[in-house]
Amino acid sequence: MESIKALKWRYATKKFDPEQILPPKKIEILKKAFNLTATSYGLQPLKMLVIQNKDLQAELKEASYGQKQISTASHVLVICIEKEIGKSFIENYFRYVQDIRKTPDDVLHPFRESLIGDFEKKPSGEIRIWATHQAYLVLGTLMSICAVEGIDSCPMEGFEPEKYDQILKLDDHNLQSVLVLPVGYRAKDDFFAELKKVRRPLEETVIEF
Amino acid sequence: MESIKALKWRYATKKFDPEQILPPKKIEILKKAFNLTATSYGLQPLKMLVIQNKDLQAELKEASYGQKQISTASHVLVICIEKEIGKSFIENYFRYVQDIRKTPDDVLHPFRESLIGDFEKKPSGEIRIWATHQAYLVLGTLMSICAVEGIDSCPMEGFEPEKYDQILKLDDHNLQSVLVLPVGYRAKDDFFAELKKVRRPLEETVIEF
Repeated sequence: MESIKALKWRYATKKFDPEQILPPKKIEILKKAFNLTATSYGLQPLKMLVIQNKDLQAELKEASYGQKQISTASHVLVICIEKEIGKSFIENYFRYVQDIRKTPDDVLHPFRESLIGDFEKKPSGEIRIWATHQAYLVLGTLMSICAVEGIDSCPMEGFEPEKYDQILKLDDHNLQSVLVLPVGYRAKDDFFAELKKVRRPLEETVIEF
Repeated sequence: MESIKALKWRYATKKFDPEQILPPKKIEILKKAFNLTATSYGLQPLKMLVIQNKDLQAELKEASYGQKQISTASHVLVICIEKEIGKSFIENYFRYVQDIRKTPDDVLHPFRESLIGDFEKKPSGEIRIWATHQAYLVLGTLMSICAVEGIDSCPMEGFEPEKYDQILKLDDHNLQSVLVLPVGYRAKDDFFAELKKVRRPLEETVIEF
């Protein structure tokens, strides 16, 4: 779909048509879009969960203040941050740089060591904030690509991350859930689909220099 | 451009062709994409600066550790957060809801008052973090729409926000700069354009349930 038309078409879908399932081709696009998104230093401190399981969705709905977009969605995407961004995580990234770009180690070495040094100095809370920023960036990509692809979605901060982490056993993966994006096709009777989009006028939100 | 092809095509452009200027139609798309992006509660705690001024870009380059994507870009977009998200900001939003959707005030009233109450209780640091999250979300949208539209861009956290705020007199607008996105067309000799994209393999970053 043409960009602006797509962004006007999208809205935070509160009720999906539970009978309509996204074809694997579309899920593949969302997985690739997730993985292709730029992240700070290229480090990708994130993982995405792709959930298509009605029992699990019913459980997650309860951990999302009962919001029915979780249970009616075709798939629920959960964006998670990595809990341990340290030496070995960064070394793993640089191994990929070396494999993919064939960059000689003497070129990579100083950058790798300085990045490891920087992260070792950062308090864990600061690293969590940094990684969370990247999660929002990815969410922006996913929502936009959903729109362009004619996929409905609902960006969600309103859920109980600790409960999600427990239900999905994210501790075992060293992950923390930070954002949720149910995706699918809007229900014909979703009341919110008919509401006009409310935005401040461009003259109020854009300043030209 | 087709979504995944576009996301593969994009890269963090480090040197733009300074002779190639984005046509007004493309800038219009970016302004609209900025404004159409979903934000938490729909509050849009953001503004975007659109800078096309080589003297100003030279000054901002100095406040960006000398990175030449700032001076060579066709336009520099600066995403800013609003410094005061309180009662009057929220009331302004609800006036737009009322104008655009014709929702009766007795329907809006409880939601408006509860939101004002919530924000009045939040420490300002927490509001700043919340607004910054929305800035990253918008950055994700802008980068993706740039790619789909064949516009090159470079997402940047690496600049000196206080200097930007001073140069652009953002205090007068009650704004703080948080992210920068120079846009335009890649220079033919940008070394980074040729580098292969490095990403963790999908099997490592996506977990299916």
